[in-house]
Amino acid sequence: MIVDVSAAAGEAAIEGIRARVEASGGRTRVSRTAESIAIACTGLGAAHAHAIAELPGVRSVRTGGPAHILAGRAFCQIPTLVRAGDDPRTWFGGTGFAVIAGPCSVEGRDMLMSTADEIHAAGAGLLRGGAFKPRTSPYAFQGLGQEALVLLAEARSRTGMPVVTEVLDVRHLDLVAAHADVLQIGARNMQNFSLLAEVGRVQRPVLLKRGPSATISELLGAAEYILAHGNSDVILCERGIRSFDTATRNTLDVAAIPVLKRETHLPVIVDPSHAAGRADIVTALSLSAAAAGADGLIIEVHPDPASALSDGPQSLTPESFRTLMTVLEPVVQAVGRWLAPPPLVRRDATPDVRRIGMEAAA
Amino acid sequence: MIVDVSAAAGEAAIEGIRARVEASGGRTRVSRTAESIAIACTGLGAAHAHAIAELPGVRSVRTGGPAHILAGRAFCQIPTLVRAGDDPRTWFGGTGFAVIAGPCSVEGRDMLMSTADEIHAAGAGLLRGGAFKPRTSPYAFQGLGQEALVLLAEARSRTGMPVVTEVLDVRHLDLVAAHADVLQIGARNMQNFSLLAEVGRVQRPVLLKRGPSATISELLGAAEYILAHGNSDVILCERGIRSFDTATRNTLDVAAIPVLKRETHLPVIVDPSHAAGRADIVTALSLSAAAAGADGLIIEVHPDPASALSDGPQSLTPESFRTLMTVLEPVVQAVGRWLAPPPLVRRDATPDVRRIGMEAAA
Amino acid sequence: MIVDVSAAAGEAAIEGIRARVEASGGRTRVSRTAESIAIACTGLGAAHAHAIAELPGVRSVRTGGPAHILAGRAFCQIPTLVRAGDDPRTWFGGTGFAVIAGPCSVEGRDMLMSTADEIHAAGAGLLRGGAFKPRTSPYAFQGLGQEALVLLAEARSRTGMPVVTEVLDVRHLDLVAAHADVLQIGARNMQNFSLLAEVGRVQRPVLLKRGPSATISELLGAAEYILAHGNSDVILCERGIRSFDTATRNTLDVAAIPVLKRETHLPVIVDPSHAAGRADIVTALSLSAAAAGADGLIIEVHPDPASALSDGPQSLTPESFRTLMTVLEPVVQAVGRWLAPPPLVRRDATPDVRRIGMEAAA
Amino acid sequence: MIVDVSAAAGEAAIEGIRARVEASGGRTRVSRTAESIAIACTGLGAAHAHAIAELPGVRSVRTGGPAHILAGRAFCQIPTLVRAGDDPRTWFGGTGFAVIAGPCSVEGRDMLMSTADEIHAAGAGLLRGGAFKPRTSPYAFQGLGQEALVLLAEARSRTGMPVVTEVLDVRHLDLVAAHADVLQIGARNMQNFSLLAEVGRVQRPVLLKRGPSATISELLGAAEYILAHGNSDVILCERGIRSFDTATRNTLDVAAIPVLKRETHLPVIVDPSHAAGRADIVTALSLSAAAAGADGLIIEVHPDPASALSDGPQSLTPESFRTLMTVLEPVVQAVGRWLAPPPLVRRDATPDVRRIGMEAAA
Repeated sequence: MIVDVSAAAGEAAIEGIRARVEASGGRTRVSRTAESIAIACTGLGAAHAHAIAELPGVRSVRTGGPAHILAGRAFCQIPTLVRAGDDPRTWFGGTGFAVIAGPCSVEGRDMLMSTADEIHAAGAGLLRGGAFKPRTSPYAFQGLGQEALVLLAEARSRTGMPVVTEVLDVRHLDLVAAHADVLQIGARNMQNFSLLAEVGRVQRPVLLKRGPSATISELLGAAEYILAHGNSDVILCERGIRSFDTATRNTLDVAAIPVLKRETHLPVIVDPSHAAGRADIVTALSLSAAAAGADGLIIEVHPDPASALSDGPQSLTPESFRTLMTVLEPVVQAVGRWLAPPPLVRRDATPDVRRIGMEAAA
Repeated sequence: MIVDVSAAAGEAAIEGIRARVEASGGRTRVSRTAESIAIACTGLGAAHAHAIAELPGVRSVRTGGPAHILAGRAFCQIPTLVRAGDDPRTWFGGTGFAVIAGPCSVEGRDMLMSTADEIHAAGAGLLRGGAFKPRTSPYAFQGLGQEALVLLAEARSRTGMPVVTEVLDVRHLDLVAAHADVLQIGARNMQNFSLLAEVGRVQRPVLLKRGPSATISELLGAAEYILAHGNSDVILCERGIRSFDTATRNTLDVAAIPVLKRETHLPVIVDPSHAAGRADIVTALSLSAAAAGADGLIIEVHPDPASALSDGPQSLTPESFRTLMTVLEPVVQAVGRWLAPPPLVRRDATPDVRRIGMEAAA
Repeated sequence: MIVDVSAAAGEAAIEGIRARVEASGGRTRVSRTAESIAIACTGLGAAHAHAIAELPGVRSVRTGGPAHILAGRAFCQIPTLVRAGDDPRTWFGGTGFAVIAGPCSVEGRDMLMSTADEIHAAGAGLLRGGAFKPRTSPYAFQGLGQEALVLLAEARSRTGMPVVTEVLDVRHLDLVAAHADVLQIGARNMQNFSLLAEVGRVQRPVLLKRGPSATISELLGAAEYILAHGNSDVILCERGIRSFDTATRNTLDVAAIPVLKRETHLPVIVDPSHAAGRADIVTALSLSAAAAGADGLIIEVHPDPASALSDGPQSLTPESFRTLMTVLEPVVQAVGRWLAPPPLVRRDATPDVRRIGMEAAA
Repeated sequence: MIVDVSAAAGEAAIEGIRARVEASGGRTRVSRTAESIAIACTGLGAAHAHAIAELPGVRSVRTGGPAHILAGRAFCQIPTLVRAGDDPRTWFGGTGFAVIAGPCSVEGRDMLMSTADEIHAAGAGLLRGGAFKPRTSPYAFQGLGQEALVLLAEARSRTGMPVVTEVLDVRHLDLVAAHADVLQIGARNMQNFSLLAEVGRVQRPVLLKRGPSATISELLGAAEYILAHGNSDVILCERGIRSFDTATRNTLDVAAIPVLKRETHLPVIVDPSHAAGRADIVTALSLSAAAAGADGLIIEVHPDPASALSDGPQSLTPESFRTLMTVLEPVVQAVGRWLAPPPLVRRDATPDVRRIGMEAAA
């Protein structure tokens, strides 16, 4: 249920509505813009709508509708800006375009540090690297685990880039959150609802990948789990869906970008590497994602793809990544955004869009 | 790697091979038939194959191949019989045809007991019922949890039917295993590899549902996780895949049954309810599954589908379920199996096919 | 628009309705059962519904709804029986189960005659064989054309089996119709609307294959083209749809059988050969189709699959086909139908269900 | 089979090879670049390869491989430029970016002329408009036929824009070719091989749309039919494939663009309107296609989408189309191409890439 409140209504009115909802066992979240205030109420039957509509300051009450209340545009009309660090290149959902890059798996210290240095020099904003790897076979390389997390933290110290890594298991969450800046939920875990609830309780941005056969509506339902448990910093990621064509590993659903942009205020990025499954078209897919309105990319880069322990065929070399960044910039600018931050985009000069956009109950 | 050993080789030869593999950090599992002995070796590089081929009793060593070694026919040629109880109607993979039935969710005591009584009278062998429910929306009914587990255990006492219920979270595993006879891994968790590893450590049959966009090979990879962690009692379940057609909720991939039967020794059952998403064709799909060679079915039955908290449109009434069982029996017999066990199939009279088929290291 | 007429209304009332519709530029088709009479009116705007509802004998007028009026159950509640010959084994949609078999392509006289003899001896009712072949590559074998048609006619004379062959091109229609008993529209031409219209003008049964990505609704729309142009003898054929899984060539949508049976009065058969793309599971798919309620099968049989010019991997040998027929019979009987016609099913003893079911304007 | 000939080999050598192939019943096509000469030989068994390899001037002979010989990069390494008129905005496959626009169906004179004027003013290079419409239902609007063709020709006279329209039936081909500049083969007819062969015999550019479940390889096979029958001017069109997601009508397979660009020398355009099925994301998809390397677009524009007889929900208004062209230009330029031709691109100044690229036997 979403309660629209008059912008002229004072804090007392808002508190009154919150108190009424919470007294009935519901929970509230408030979204404010200059013109309007919306209060999302969850865990409350539609039967309460009538009584709430009578409270002071309430303009209207909307019930029903999609499963994604907090994730929806109807609740929060301003785009959410998710910041993984102070550098504007690590912000998702604003006027910049953020690029995450790095190896599929952290395979060792040397390969990670050299990759981190190279992608940083090429303009990437964040470093990705798998510590715990979900693999189709139990006999495949499962990642270096904690050792990889320590290496990622070292790479962050060295380059200043925040670290994105996947969390597979609720029991690893504290460990991963202690080392990583952005918690990735992989495509196979998009509907691991226990895990979604747990990352919803952590104050750390979450990169949520779309499952290979998940509808857009299901992706938003998964995001809603995270939001509903208290974490507002969710970045959605389109990474290709399953189709019949085998020319690519998955089929990049580029239309998901504008569709999501209409449905939700959350930032949307694209993983062209997993979509393609082959390095030779990663650049073309990256440009297409930027042109379609994506807020960023996550790209696999490996110093020697042929020897990679996982996902070698789809990994760019550092050199190809540099080329990609070069051809990407004019496309990003053509759609009115920037890749390397212009001087005037400084942390203290940028309004905190997210906090204006959505605010948790105290 | 699979090591074929001469049937004439004594235990000493087998022990010698095991010792060699384990000394190199690998693990072994032995499968025996009257004619041959196969030793599956996991966690061992192919570089060891040459040395192992020289050991006494070894006929040949096969490396490479699919990710599913323990699940594969090459390792175990005899079908695995998974027994959820003493009653032959609860056995999967033999000459019988097992039927699991019950509500999507346990919604309360009365509905569960009446459904259990009705399906038991109609000839079902096992009772299903959801305690922890994975739901697309965080605001949908999430199941009664522990309360439902207690009710399921009561229904088992009352009817004698073993209980099948889903486990969603590694942290619930002990609790669920304390009440349930078969642990279900839902379609959304088919590649939740942490959870697969944990149910692999429990000595309790596991019902593993195919993910809606999982290939057959990925399903076998998921089963391999469970087998590789020590649990040999895995029942595979085809429950429909995602396709473009919206006439049904999913597309029942009936061909998966004979394909799986060729690839693996594990039993294969079908969930026609989730495949159809509509009650009116559940019976037709059930018959088609039986005719295609399935080892059983799992069917949703609710005393009042219109008021069900989840999956109402696809639930049969108890009366429709009785009709289904009636028309199912001649089809099951037409393919040379039985639905109600003939008198001669008694526990003590049936060879323990599974133990012959596959044997864990002591 | 479908006009329901009281069974008590005389022919004058029916003629009055027809005259009214035709005067407004529409066309009519009448369907009669013991209890009711339905008149389908096509080519008429919904604006006429009101005036028609006032005519004598009219009980109700239904407008809107699906694109398939003539194909729908709402128009004709009795199953249509399509007869390709006098032998009850060539009837589709009654209490029997018809089997069409033969090579993918007619490759020569010897292979065709020997295959025809073998499948006839095994109990097949009709002979299939491609004369004009649609091939993905222009350089692949395109069929023997007219020469094949002559050979097929010879095989018919020899065995008595009616002949099913594909027509690819409107310009070949007269030629094919001069030799074949059933005109097949291939999956790739399911929405070749010019061709559908032309076979609709021929008085010859049409076997309409579902396109690999056609919805059930689109298949019925394609059938409607044929029916609307005057040909009531349409047999629908499910032959597998495209999905992501590569274990089989296509995914047999077995649920399409009961769904179609609810939507339409037309007979429904299954092509397990193209669905599977591999011979080893054709039998299992055949049994599953029969159990799900199909009215028949179309199966590829080749004397030497390894040397076949097309579709070898999915072709049965004559010997495998005999085995299939043997195991098929008990399943067909288990669902209350017959494979070899019982003595009492003779042409003169069987009601002409189709003519009762649906009747064209004189 | 592709025969690589030394660039130094004279015409006599080429004629010798041609004569040898044709004497064996094969056909040849020659492709020349500055460095190399390739002769594609079709209709010839691989058994001839050895003898041909011995002929003067032959460097190597490649047999086997994909079904698309003439369409492949291996045969013709230079992109084919297909020209629908003299204006560089009507050229596909060069350094420009061509835009086709217009209504789904020609519904009448006024709507066509006003749309043509508006899109011309906005910078479109070609006019689309359906005369013969393939429709799922036989009762839906089937197009104005010949009347529409005459109106399209009038719109061409008025604006100078060449006309693109679909041909559905081999019997209409002469009629359509007499009025249209580019013959469109619709998605449903992509594997109507009779029709492909016939348009292959016409000297008129063909716009070949990918079928909704066609693989990229099948699309190239369909193009090969046209090329093999003598017509080298084929424009490929990605228009969305069928997937499980219903947020869009089809799923735009944007990766098909770079994949096709690697496989074939033919130009590739995108139809964002049919991919989206909804007007609100057509612009985003258009930009993504341009960024991914497409050679052009085909877009549905209607003066009043709400009243369109077909495809209204996906049609842009003329005003939205103007906006699209405005935001498209910087993206097209960002990838190094032009939308409005720069002054120096004049017909006489541009090399005839196609004729260099591929040349039919005299």
